[in-house]
Amino acid sequence: MINITFLPSRKVVQTPVGSTILQAASVAGVQVESTCGGKGTCGKCKVQVVAKNSSLTAQVSLIEKKFLSAAELSAGVVLACQRVLTEDTVVKVQEQKDVHKRKTDFVGLGHAAIAPSVGKYPIKLTKPSVEDQTPDWDRLLASLPVSGIEFNLSVAASLPRVFRVGDFLATAVLDGDKLIAVETGDTSGRCFGAAIDIGTTTIVVYLMDLNRGTVINSGAVTNPQQAFGADVISRITHAANGPDQLRELQEKVIEGLNTIIARLCQESGISRGEIYQAVAVGNTTMAHLFLGIDPTYLAPAPFIPVFSRSVEVQAKELGLKILDTGTVIMLPNVAGYVGSDTVGVMLAAEADRLPGFSLIVDIGTNGEIVLCGKDRILTCSAAAGPAFEGAEIKYGMRAAEGAIEGVRITEDVELDVIAGGKPRGICGSGLIDAIAEMHKIGVITPTGRYASGPVLEELPASVRDRLRKTPRASEFVLVWGDDSATGEDIVLSQKDIREMQLAKGAIMAGIMILCREMGIDPQEIDRVLLAGAFGNYIRKESAVRIGLLPSLPLEQIVTIGNAAGDGAKMALISTEERTRADLLSRRAEHVELSNKKEFQQEFLKGLDFKAMV
Amino acid sequence: MINITFLPSRKVVQTPVGSTILQAASVAGVQVESTCGGKGTCGKCKVQVVAKNSSLTAQVSLIEKKFLSAAELSAGVVLACQRVLTEDTVVKVQEQKDVHKRKTDFVGLGHAAIAPSVGKYPIKLTKPSVEDQTPDWDRLLASLPVSGIEFNLSVAASLPRVFRVGDFLATAVLDGDKLIAVETGDTSGRCFGAAIDIGTTTIVVYLMDLNRGTVINSGAVTNPQQAFGADVISRITHAANGPDQLRELQEKVIEGLNTIIARLCQESGISRGEIYQAVAVGNTTMAHLFLGIDPTYLAPAPFIPVFSRSVEVQAKELGLKILDTGTVIMLPNVAGYVGSDTVGVMLAAEADRLPGFSLIVDIGTNGEIVLCGKDRILTCSAAAGPAFEGAEIKYGMRAAEGAIEGVRITEDVELDVIAGGKPRGICGSGLIDAIAEMHKIGVITPTGRYASGPVLEELPASVRDRLRKTPRASEFVLVWGDDSATGEDIVLSQKDIREMQLAKGAIMAGIMILCREMGIDPQEIDRVLLAGAFGNYIRKESAVRIGLLPSLPLEQIVTIGNAAGDGAKMALISTEERTRADLLSRRAEHVELSNKKEFQQEFLKGLDFKAMV
Repeated sequence: MINITFLPSRKVVQTPVGSTILQAASVAGVQVESTCGGKGTCGKCKVQVVAKNSSLTAQVSLIEKKFLSAAELSAGVVLACQRVLTEDTVVKVQEQKDVHKRKTDFVGLGHAAIAPSVGKYPIKLTKPSVEDQTPDWDRLLASLPVSGIEFNLSVAASLPRVFRVGDFLATAVLDGDKLIAVETGDTSGRCFGAAIDIGTTTIVVYLMDLNRGTVINSGAVTNPQQAFGADVISRITHAANGPDQLRELQEKVIEGLNTIIARLCQESGISRGEIYQAVAVGNTTMAHLFLGIDPTYLAPAPFIPVFSRSVEVQAKELGLKILDTGTVIMLPNVAGYVGSDTVGVMLAAEADRLPGFSLIVDIGTNGEIVLCGKDRILTCSAAAGPAFEGAEIKYGMRAAEGAIEGVRITEDVELDVIAGGKPRGICGSGLIDAIAEMHKIGVITPTGRYASGPVLEELPASVRDRLRKTPRASEFVLVWGDDSATGEDIVLSQKDIREMQLAKGAIMAGIMILCREMGIDPQEIDRVLLAGAFGNYIRKESAVRIGLLPSLPLEQIVTIGNAAGDGAKMALISTEERTRADLLSRRAEHVELSNKKEFQQEFLKGLDFKAMV
Repeated sequence: MINITFLPSRKVVQTPVGSTILQAASVAGVQVESTCGGKGTCGKCKVQVVAKNSSLTAQVSLIEKKFLSAAELSAGVVLACQRVLTEDTVVKVQEQKDVHKRKTDFVGLGHAAIAPSVGKYPIKLTKPSVEDQTPDWDRLLASLPVSGIEFNLSVAASLPRVFRVGDFLATAVLDGDKLIAVETGDTSGRCFGAAIDIGTTTIVVYLMDLNRGTVINSGAVTNPQQAFGADVISRITHAANGPDQLRELQEKVIEGLNTIIARLCQESGISRGEIYQAVAVGNTTMAHLFLGIDPTYLAPAPFIPVFSRSVEVQAKELGLKILDTGTVIMLPNVAGYVGSDTVGVMLAAEADRLPGFSLIVDIGTNGEIVLCGKDRILTCSAAAGPAFEGAEIKYGMRAAEGAIEGVRITEDVELDVIAGGKPRGICGSGLIDAIAEMHKIGVITPTGRYASGPVLEELPASVRDRLRKTPRASEFVLVWGDDSATGEDIVLSQKDIREMQLAKGAIMAGIMILCREMGIDPQEIDRVLLAGAFGNYIRKESAVRIGLLPSLPLEQIVTIGNAAGDGAKMALISTEERTRADLLSRRAEHVELSNKKEFQQEFLKGLDFKAMV
């Protein structure tokens, strides 16, 4: 094992030879920028090697040559995903103050005590004899520190071999008071779990060491259910066709997860049978589909889920390829459109412990909004639609390579493109930026129409020329064909603007109604926590300018990264946190927006591009 | 693949080239007598090849030459285990008609109160609305009379449809505090269960109405594991070869049970999903195989089972085709060779409530013996071998159609044949009768040898002529070829007599050792209860005469029929009886005969054919 020290935090972590710096940082919980997951395509994971370490500084990969300047190379800057560790190292991580960088203002995992429900107990059994014909199962039970253990057929069936191969030295694996495995010999040093975040778009697995409470590997794939539509409604519609379609959707997501798990296991040198527990979060539809439960009645009012409390099932019931008898825990949801992912966010953000009033916003296909304060936790779901994820937008795309993620308009249009290079489309944060900038310079009016007349005359010609009439409507050219990856102009149409208006109007109405329910003005909010990938990418001043977020001083708006996943991790490594998740879901008061007569009014008010009051 | 057709049933099965006829019959579910499991040592698996098929009829193996007469060979009779299939074939099988019309002295089911653990609760739910978004599962739980119900994924997944098809009128099915089903509408009038008796030779299912505590149908088939050998040791040996072989044995017995259950359901107009619980009994090996648990270490000393307490598993874990989420309960065993079948017998016989001293004997492949009194329950298992079931006896057969079940010798030999007609062989009760009668008239000596000299001169010529010398040994002709179904003489050889001596010697030794352990003489026993099919057929005076049972007045020897099955029925309809079964198995003190130094001495004493003292 190698010690790697991260500056400026001075965090030290042990990691096996052959890990990359990026993996070690993940284990240490040190945030290193990376949008490609270590594939070497984003060039964002720059870190500086501080200790003299020839093996690390020697070779510069082609990928590094592509992303790093000569000055950076000579200063010892490397890409964390490209450098494999072979000896003790000190690494300095770029402090991320620039709002444009993908960053998280805080990480919520630190405060969870390491006390998982899975425990391993090495046992030395006396050997049977004609004088002591105690059956294997009874012999095992007598040696365990817990009583009242229920019979487990698979475990019982494994005992004859496990006991005799190991000469009656074995290790019992308990999850709470459930016996889930018995292994030959003393295996207590190896104990793993999986935290799972099932997004409508992306599914992520974090492989964790339950003895140490650390993430040892993680991976993500696009949710294979995408084939049935980008949003939850299209998935529900497919599932409603019948049991075969429901099973198909379940199998898709399970297969996707199994693919990730198999890869993580291989990379980290562990077997799937050593993953004893999985804790999953996801929106309520994803949770139903993951469990194979019909989500049909989530779609129409009154939006009834089948369950809300946390659910525990055996992994083999789902076909999830961890230990067959391992437990899969789906954290509780709050309502049909406020899922366990939001509960995970609340857990990671410590929603029940924050002083004053806190607004937590997780914007994806839906916008889940939490307002806490005065010992209350209010939740609502605003049907924002998939516009923030680039869907329904002509040149919209997810925040992937080639997506315009930032826009500034001065003498001309300046763009930030993910992974550099020529743009292919625009993602949510780019859309917000573009609209905020166009609104600032008067290209679009507060009501969301492309301007005409005198206001345009004041613009530089290079900007003005970009606004053009087509036979159907106006549009604004963000990228001319010569500069785009496809050779096509990348434009924002009047319809695209409308989509964004509807989406942000829904979010704003949700925030306003929760504030009213709490009895406060938006200005009384002490902090806004932005969760999810989108929250990381967004430019706060743009979000405030168009009225997507309350107009607070920017330092009171903080990003908390994939807090849903952090919540799953916390619940995995700590039974106390899992109990707290249950408590949070019970305490949460759900406000059904569709049931509020003032919703329509707030929604209409929220359509205008202007700061929230 | 080859097509093989079995007559008279006309069953056709596809089987790969290289299978034996015996294996094909097993696949087809066609019963072919075989007690050696295809090893070629019993010579019982005679079938007639009907289709002209040169490859099959060509070669006669040495084993076939040993067991088949010239007449049989020329008629196309072969041993099914010896013939490897290479092309399509038609084979005629001797049908074995089991006769189940045996009466017993008493049936123990009457005293069990009807209070099954399965209960049905009709519920009328309030319909969800935007004001009441309670999830389906929570809505259900709130309506139930029991709290602390665990989440059941299959049941939860069924709720959206069940609730809405039935307009929120439903019936919850609880097994104790486990929710196992929710059905549309009020179905509380229909509630069924299955009592299962897994014998080494025969498996039986009793379909019961749990509301009324009555048996509404029953059925039996030969245990399809027969293909792997007639006794438990050959089954254990097969299972010990590896997980695939173990699974094969499990699948065989589950398939057999599923065949019976499907037929009973069809005959009685119920669906398998209405069978909510099954309670099974069987010897400890059968119980292990039924559950898919490796029985390897039951075979060698110290004979360690994997479990002894009662086991509860979900039906779908076993593939048993009752309600998938229904519970299958295997009653507890006492030791490696005293199984839940014996616990069932104790339950039905009320072993814990009988006054004085009671001896309970269940003779099958093993002889399980129970001696109760003075608040103690002693058990032992005597390895009687399969002689009482007709195996290892040249003309031995199970108690099926054509079996000699009773013998009297006066002026000549008089026979009782099951179902009348010409005899085909002799079953256990016939053997005991034959030996007792031959012993009475002096044809065999107390030490078990065929007599010679003056004693024979006193016999009627018609009897004396039946005792004949062959080149190898003496034998007694029970049936002359003219009167037998096969045309062959049916004889009892000296070796057959020896097999019976060994079997009854083991039983007697077991009884003597239990008496000594209890501190009584056999004459102090107040009653003998004979359980099992064998107990029904036996002539009590013959059993006493040869010293298989203590010499009590015959009215103190009573048959109690399939008391193991009765025990399963009682545990199915009454939780109190199920608890009592657990108590009985815990209270039972097992005496391991192989561990008793006096066993060998008692065994040798027990070999003689004389009344027990």
